[in-house]
Amino acid sequence: VIDTLAVVGVGLIGGSLARAMRGRGLCREVSGWGRREAPLREALELGVLDRFSTDPAQALEGASLVVAAVPPGAMAGVFRAMRPLLGADTVVTDVGSIKGGVVDAARAELGEALPRFVPGHPIAGKERHGVGASDAELFQGRRVILTPLPETSEAALRLVRDVWGGCGAEVVEMEVGHHDQVLAATSHLPHLLAYGLVDCLARLDEKQEVFGFAAGGFRDFTRIASSDPALWQDICMANREHLLEILGLFRGELDGLAAALEAGDGDRVLKAFRRAKQARDRFARLMEGRLAPESRPI
Amino acid sequence: VIDTLAVVGVGLIGGSLARAMRGRGLCREVSGWGRREAPLREALELGVLDRFSTDPAQALEGASLVVAAVPPGAMAGVFRAMRPLLGADTVVTDVGSIKGGVVDAARAELGEALPRFVPGHPIAGKERHGVGASDAELFQGRRVILTPLPETSEAALRLVRDVWGGCGAEVVEMEVGHHDQVLAATSHLPHLLAYGLVDCLARLDEKQEVFGFAAGGFRDFTRIASSDPALWQDICMANREHLLEILGLFRGELDGLAAALEAGDGDRVLKAFRRAKQARDRFARLMEGRLAPESRPI
Repeated sequence: VIDTLAVVGVGLIGGSLARAMRGRGLCREVSGWGRREAPLREALELGVLDRFSTDPAQALEGASLVVAAVPPGAMAGVFRAMRPLLGADTVVTDVGSIKGGVVDAARAELGEALPRFVPGHPIAGKERHGVGASDAELFQGRRVILTPLPETSEAALRLVRDVWGGCGAEVVEMEVGHHDQVLAATSHLPHLLAYGLVDCLARLDEKQEVFGFAAGGFRDFTRIASSDPALWQDICMANREHLLEILGLFRGELDGLAAALEAGDGDRVLKAFRRAKQARDRFARLMEGRLAPESRPI
Repeated sequence: VIDTLAVVGVGLIGGSLARAMRGRGLCREVSGWGRREAPLREALELGVLDRFSTDPAQALEGASLVVAAVPPGAMAGVFRAMRPLLGADTVVTDVGSIKGGVVDAARAELGEALPRFVPGHPIAGKERHGVGASDAELFQGRRVILTPLPETSEAALRLVRDVWGGCGAEVVEMEVGHHDQVLAATSHLPHLLAYGLVDCLARLDEKQEVFGFAAGGFRDFTRIASSDPALWQDICMANREHLLEILGLFRGELDGLAAALEAGDGDRVLKAFRRAKQARDRFARLMEGRLAPESRPI
C-alpha cells in the first residue's frame, strides 16, 4: 500500500486511476497537482482527491508515487518542475499515449530520478474527458503497456506493475518504439481518419445535409472524432513519424481499392472486405474474452 | 391495412419490416420468397412469415405489397421474375442501399408495373445479418428515404409512405442521384475505410499482434467491418461512381493532413480536428433528438 499518490493532471485517466487506487485501498491519500484550480476543486468535491495545490512543492509533498497524466506535449515541463521536489524513493510514472517523446522528455528533465521513472500507457479511454467522466473501473480487464528503460530500477517497475494489476489491468511490457508503432496503427491512425472524414463531410454538409441521413454505422465509425481535438493533435504530432508510416500503408490500401472500383474489379474489393471481416471478427473474439460482461457489445 | 405483404429476401431488413408490420397490425399475412429454403423456414419458425415458397408464383399470390429486400445486384433478376406475377394493383417497393442501379433495373424489368414501384431505403441496420437478427423496432425513429420517379403513381407512393410511417419511421423524399451521393458519403465510404483499415492492419498483425493492443475506440471505428462483405462489395460496386467521387475528396483531405504532419504544422492539424469535433457533436445532438432513449449512447 502506497502512502501518498500524487496525480499530475486530474482528468479522465488521472482521475480514474485515483478512484481505482482509493477504491481498492491501494493508497492512503491522493494529492492533485494541476495548472488550473477549477478542475482540481471539482476533483476534491467528487471525492477523487484528498488535497490539491497548483504549487507542485505542496502537491507533491510526501508522495511515494507520482503519476503524470497530462498530454504528451506537457510532459517535459511537468518533469522539469517535479525533479527538485521528488523524494529519494519516489517513483514516477506516466499514462501518455505515446512513449518515445515522453521518454525523451524524462531523459532530458528527470536527471538522477530517471531510474525511478516507469513509462506507462493504459489502453483505455472514453471520448468524454475531464475528471467528471472518471471511473474506478476504467482499467478493469484492460491492458496497460509499460516500456521500461535500461536504466529503470526493478523496484520501481515492480511497484508500477502492482499498482496497475491491483486496478484490474493486465500489464505487458514492450519496447518504446514498438509501442509507438502499434499505437499509431490501432489508435492514432483511426483518430486521424475519423477526424478527417468528419471534417471532409462537414464541408459537403453545408449544401447537402449529409449528417441528417447517417445511421448507427456512421455514429460508431465517427465516435472518436468527438474526442478532445487538442489532446489528439498533440498525440498525432508527437508520434508523427510512426503515424506517417502507417498512414502511408493505408493510403496504399485506398489506392488499391480505388483502382479496383475504377476498373470494376468487384472480386478484388470482395477479397479485401472478406479478409477484413475475418480479422475484425477475430479481434472481436479477442476483446470479448478480455472484457467484463457489461462492456461486451462488440 | 394491407392484406398480404410479400417479402423477397427475408434477411435483417425484410424480416424486420415483416415483424414491424405484423406487430402493428399493418398487414394480415406475410408471405416470403427466397432462393433458398433454409432461411425461409427459419423465418416461418420465428413467426416472421405465415407462409413461404421458393417459387415466386406461389409466394407472390394475392400480394398487395411486394418488398424487394435483396442486395442491389440481385434486384434486376427479382424484378424480372415478379413482373408476370404482379396483380393490377400490386405495389412494389425495395429497401436497397443504392437507388440509381435499382431504378435502372426496375425501368428495364418492371414494364407496365413501373408506376406502382416506389424506390425506398430505410436508414437503419446492424452489423449482424439474417432473419435471426430481425427486430420489429429497427425502424423506430429512423429515416426512410423514398426516391419516387416521374412515373410513380400517387397512390403507390402514399401506400409506401404510410407503411413506413406506421412502422415508426420518418419518411423523406429525395432525388435518386442525390440519395446515392449522400449515402456514398455517410455509409459507403465509411464501410470502405473500415474494411480497408482492418485489411491493412491484418497484414501488419502477423508480426506485431496489433489487435491485442486496440481498445474501445478501435472497436467502434471498425465495427462496420464486421458487416457482410458480399453485400457491401455489391453496394460499393453498384454506387462506385459516387463512391469514387467522395473517396477522391477524402484522399485529398488525407493528403492535406499528411502534408501537415510532415511539415510539423500542428496548427493545421488542430484546426481540422476542431472542425471535425464540432461537426461530430452537432451530428450527435441531431441523432439524439431522433432516436428512442434506449438506443441513445452517442
